[in-house]
Amino acid sequence: MDSIKNLIVTLGENAKNAAKTLRCATTVAKNNTLINIASQIDQNRASIFKANNQDLVNGKNKGLETTLLDRLMLDEERLNGVIESLNQIINLPDPIGEITDLKYQPSGIQVGKMRVPLGVLGIIYESRPNVTIDAAALCLKSGNSVILRGGSEAIHSNYALYTCVRQGIKQAGLNENCAQLINTQNHEAVIELVKASDYVDAIIPRGGKGLVEAISNSAKTPVIKHLNGICHTYIDKDADKKKAISIAFNAKTRRYGVCNATETLLVHACAVSRILPKLIAQYLTKGVELRGCKETLKLSNKIIAATEKDWNTEYLDAILSIRIVNSMSEAIKHIDKHGSGHTESIVSENYTRSRRFITEVDSASVMINASTGFADGFEYGLGAEIGISTDKFHVRGPVGLEGLTSQKFIVLGDGHIRQ
Amino acid sequence: MDSIKNLIVTLGENAKNAAKTLRCATTVAKNNTLINIASQIDQNRASIFKANNQDLVNGKNKGLETTLLDRLMLDEERLNGVIESLNQIINLPDPIGEITDLKYQPSGIQVGKMRVPLGVLGIIYESRPNVTIDAAALCLKSGNSVILRGGSEAIHSNYALYTCVRQGIKQAGLNENCAQLINTQNHEAVIELVKASDYVDAIIPRGGKGLVEAISNSAKTPVIKHLNGICHTYIDKDADKKKAISIAFNAKTRRYGVCNATETLLVHACAVSRILPKLIAQYLTKGVELRGCKETLKLSNKIIAATEKDWNTEYLDAILSIRIVNSMSEAIKHIDKHGSGHTESIVSENYTRSRRFITEVDSASVMINASTGFADGFEYGLGAEIGISTDKFHVRGPVGLEGLTSQKFIVLGDGHIRQ
Repeated sequence: MDSIKNLIVTLGENAKNAAKTLRCATTVAKNNTLINIASQIDQNRASIFKANNQDLVNGKNKGLETTLLDRLMLDEERLNGVIESLNQIINLPDPIGEITDLKYQPSGIQVGKMRVPLGVLGIIYESRPNVTIDAAALCLKSGNSVILRGGSEAIHSNYALYTCVRQGIKQAGLNENCAQLINTQNHEAVIELVKASDYVDAIIPRGGKGLVEAISNSAKTPVIKHLNGICHTYIDKDADKKKAISIAFNAKTRRYGVCNATETLLVHACAVSRILPKLIAQYLTKGVELRGCKETLKLSNKIIAATEKDWNTEYLDAILSIRIVNSMSEAIKHIDKHGSGHTESIVSENYTRSRRFITEVDSASVMINASTGFADGFEYGLGAEIGISTDKFHVRGPVGLEGLTSQKFIVLGDGHIRQ
Repeated sequence: MDSIKNLIVTLGENAKNAAKTLRCATTVAKNNTLINIASQIDQNRASIFKANNQDLVNGKNKGLETTLLDRLMLDEERLNGVIESLNQIINLPDPIGEITDLKYQPSGIQVGKMRVPLGVLGIIYESRPNVTIDAAALCLKSGNSVILRGGSEAIHSNYALYTCVRQGIKQAGLNENCAQLINTQNHEAVIELVKASDYVDAIIPRGGKGLVEAISNSAKTPVIKHLNGICHTYIDKDADKKKAISIAFNAKTRRYGVCNATETLLVHACAVSRILPKLIAQYLTKGVELRGCKETLKLSNKIIAATEKDWNTEYLDAILSIRIVNSMSEAIKHIDKHGSGHTESIVSENYTRSRRFITEVDSASVMINASTGFADGFEYGLGAEIGISTDKFHVRGPVGLEGLTSQKFIVLGDGHIRQ
């Protein structure tokens, strides 16, 4: 126990010292680091695959599920993807040092805000080894030093990739401790890390709900967390038929296992006969299981009766719950009660109601006439994301480079003193 | 114990329900509320003074210190100040609903950010009863419902002012539970409030370091906290003599008991003979006790030798520590080690070094050629402040209306679906 605590203190001190130099690093030095990491990965494909193979063999021996083994697996194509993602982050503008709102005040001083890094971030993730590179790259580019803790099943793959990160940092002349990997699989390390508020400025868990909840409950530092995505699409009475069907169908069926998939469809009673039968037929043809309210059940005998539990469930599967409402207020009330604050979309041609919807719905993303599937850092032009935050505090929605930063006030005077 | 817990749950549920309506309230409704509160205070001066007098009598009987009794006291002038502060908040633009960065993305959707309230705020404060009005007004204008908990010595004054708040909200047609006061003085109420993360989105403690630390340690929700202000003024080797003396003198002596007062003066060795003797004489004439490093001691026999403890102390008094450094790097290193991340200022005519100072110093406010005394919401043009945050997370520096809000993404499409 004590040795784990000492390990975290050492990593924490290293990270804090590294952060002091990284926060002043030039954009060129940070980009060079990422260029070097990409080239290290490219040059060390063989040893990365060897390490990955070791994880895969161990995983099979331990009886890991096929889906988990698939997440764990690295091949040429996936490594190319990792390098491509590095190139994208290199091409993003550096958020650090940006000065905004620089205005003269009555006293004569000029006051503005400068964007600065958060400091030291702890990233705790599960099986995908590519997160090692994604997370390190986003942290380094945003001037934050990072302590990484990957899943035990990916330990060799993560270490091989991490070696490329360290090498890349060293070659660029930055402090190697800007990125550190916790290489013990003792779970105590996670517990100590999330409590190390003297060293760590924020924790970002990347993984399932269980991981995020466990971390949030024991963390002493702020957690940029991403919990449920119970997203809603609301088809208003004035919805365009074609748009409504296309959006609602896409929002559920584009991909089932993603947090921005619509889990509940709300339909205004006046739009039902015009839109819902055709949409239901499309879902059923695609093999989506439908669970409906009492009114919905009348439309097809293939629809199962929804229970109260359905409205609170993130299926992450080919299942959709449908509820017919008598007003937009009823729809918003439903979202308020059952939604998770992730993403909701209204389909409507009505100006006043769509304006009301985006004002009144209190979610990280609120959309008009667009698929909830767009809730994503790349689609929002952030270039990359480290997660989608459903917290209101600090960052909300897709967390890109800017979401990993803070702002400070700067004041420019010329000998001004305050009366 | 259980009854206190039930009380907090009830207040929390009320606040959460009120927040749902307040987040959609119009600017006019919110301003009318504040206008009504101001008029209620004006009309009920007699009963407010009566309640305040009861607190003062109880305080004297309990043997409260004179300074504490002074903080507690309300008179015509102070009530005018409270009303004036309400008028200032009324005149500030409404931060809620502001849409920024609305840009087209390659897919054709338009993505922007809309400013929204945080939700429910808990404000825990000490003896000054005017905080009841200030805090309520800032929360209401920023669309947040608020649970107030004042100091036990001000219980009658707070209740009298709170009555004006409730009346003002009611007259404006908003939900009265937008502002609630915890009227039991049982300390358990504070403990339950800071743990009520199901209802409260953030806690803002306003008071001494002891209060803030105690709350931060037990809070389950984010705390917008304001701890020490160990502020530094650094006189660079190229400092203008007149500016340096005027700024350093003002930064210490404008007011002693405030968090933005300079507690340590750092002076470049090359600037010492040109600037420091005159400055020391000014401080001594004003009655400031000076505690200096070994080099400083040579300049006057009235200077006491500083100990390591001095560099870490927020005096909040007519005391200043002085250290002579051989480079700006040494000054920044000193600030990194001993500063509290509140406010630091450089006095320099040198472009490169002042640019480096504002980039490298990692504090909530970093200044060039201006007194640290400017670190204040009013001086920064925020109109009002609820505190000065030394946290990096979410808000930093003076927390005004905007600091009490969050942003959400909004997406405007026209039937866009994601491939």
